[in-house]
Amino acid sequence: MRKIDVCPTPELLHLYQLEGKIAVVVDVLRATSCMTTAFAHGVAKIIPVALLEECRDLQCQGYIAAAERDAKKAEGFDLDNSPFSYMDSKLAGKTIAVTTTNGTMAITKSRAAEKVIIGSFLNKKAIVEYLRNSPNDVVVVCAGWKGKVNLEDMLFAGSVVCGLKGDFAVEDDSALSALMIYEAAKYNMIKFMAGSSHVRRLHGLGLTKDIEFCLREDVYNVVPILDGEVLIKL
Amino acid sequence: MRKIDVCPTPELLHLYQLEGKIAVVVDVLRATSCMTTAFAHGVAKIIPVALLEECRDLQCQGYIAAAERDAKKAEGFDLDNSPFSYMDSKLAGKTIAVTTTNGTMAITKSRAAEKVIIGSFLNKKAIVEYLRNSPNDVVVVCAGWKGKVNLEDMLFAGSVVCGLKGDFAVEDDSALSALMIYEAAKYNMIKFMAGSSHVRRLHGLGLTKDIEFCLREDVYNVVPILDGEVLIKL
Repeated sequence: MRKIDVCPTPELLHLYQLEGKIAVVVDVLRATSCMTTAFAHGVAKIIPVALLEECRDLQCQGYIAAAERDAKKAEGFDLDNSPFSYMDSKLAGKTIAVTTTNGTMAITKSRAAEKVIIGSFLNKKAIVEYLRNSPNDVVVVCAGWKGKVNLEDMLFAGSVVCGLKGDFAVEDDSALSALMIYEAAKYNMIKFMAGSSHVRRLHGLGLTKDIEFCLREDVYNVVPILDGEVLIKL
Repeated sequence: MRKIDVCPTPELLHLYQLEGKIAVVVDVLRATSCMTTAFAHGVAKIIPVALLEECRDLQCQGYIAAAERDAKKAEGFDLDNSPFSYMDSKLAGKTIAVTTTNGTMAITKSRAAEKVIIGSFLNKKAIVEYLRNSPNDVVVVCAGWKGKVNLEDMLFAGSVVCGLKGDFAVEDDSALSALMIYEAAKYNMIKFMAGSSHVRRLHGLGLTKDIEFCLREDVYNVVPILDGEVLIKL
C-alpha cells in the first residue's frame, strides 16, 4: 500500500525522505492558493524563488514579479499575494516570478522529490485525484510560518489524508494529527480558523476576503507541477 | 495575560524563546512518565543526560543508570524505560542517571528556560496547578520521536493548554492544534492513541501495560524540576 506522510513545516523536511515520492507543497494563506488561481486564469509559468533579490533579478529580465514579506507586498514589485490579483486576463500566457515568506521556500526545499505539485483548498479535488492515480508515496509539505507549524496548512494536509485514506497508509503521527484537525474543522473551516495566528494577522491587514476565498474547496481543476525550476499547469 | 506555547518537537526549539519562561518537557511514552513515577516512589535525584556515554560514565561513578534506545533497554545498564521499573522501594533516596531516545535530549535542550519542569499525564494536575500559580509564560516542549512530531506528546500538551486556557492566552498555532487533538481524544485516549506510530512500536515490544499506565491522569502529586543539571522533586 502506498504511504502518505505530512511534514508540518519545511524546518523538519530533513527528517523526511522525499526521493521517489510526490511532494504536495501547501501554503493555504496564501501562496499556493494564488498559484492555483493564476494557472486557472491562464498564467503560463510561475518561477518560484526563495529570495527577494532573485525575484528582483527576474523582474529586471522582464518577467512580471510578485513578492510578499510578512503578508504585505514587497516594495517595487508588480503583484502582491492575494488570489484576487491573479484573476486578471492580462496575465494569460505570461510567466510570473514569485517569492513569498514561506511558500516559495517550501517549494525550493522540496526539489528532492520525484514530483512537486502545488496544493490548496481551491484545487484539492484535482490534487487528490492526481495522487490517487499516481504510483508514488506522498509527502504533504506544509509551508508553515517562519519555520513554525500553522493551522491552515495542517488543515489542508488533513483534508488530503482524509481524501486518500482508503488507498494510502497513514503511518506518520503528523499525518494522523492533521487528519484529526481536519475532522474537527471540516464542517465550518472559516469559524474554526478564526483563532489561528495567521488569520488574525490577515484580518488585521483587512484581508478577510482573501481568507474566505482561500478556504473554498474545489474551485479550480488545475494541478500545478514543478518542471525543472519552473511551475507549469499539468 | 500570560501566554502558553507548544513546541511540537525539540527540532523546532530554536524558534521558541525560552528565556524567562517555564518549559514543561514531556515524553509521555515513556521518559517523563518514568521520572514522575520515580519521584513519587522516593527517588531523590535524576540526572538526565543526552548521550549513552555520559550515562555510562555516571554508572561507573556509582550511580544507578537507566538507558533506553529505540524503546529498548540499552545493554549494560541497570534500568529500562518502563514506569513499573521505578515502583521499587530499593530506589528510595537514590540518584539515577537517565538517558532516553528523545526525552532526556528535550530536557537538556530546554535549559535556557527560567525553570524546566517534567510533565506527564500521571502528574498533569500538579503541573497545571504549578503553572497557574507561577507568574511566567509557558512553553510545553514535546520530546517527539527522533525529531518528528508525535501524537502522545501533542495530546499531553493539549491537555495542559486546556487546563490553563482561562488564565493563559493561546497564541501559537501549535498550541491550538494540540488543544484540538486533546479535545478530540479526551474521552478515550487509549482508543484514540491506538493508531499512533509509537504506540504500535510499543505494542510490538509487548509494552501494552506501559501505554495504558502512561495515559492515566493525575496519579501522582509531584512536580519534578531541574535544579542545575539535576532533577529534584519540588
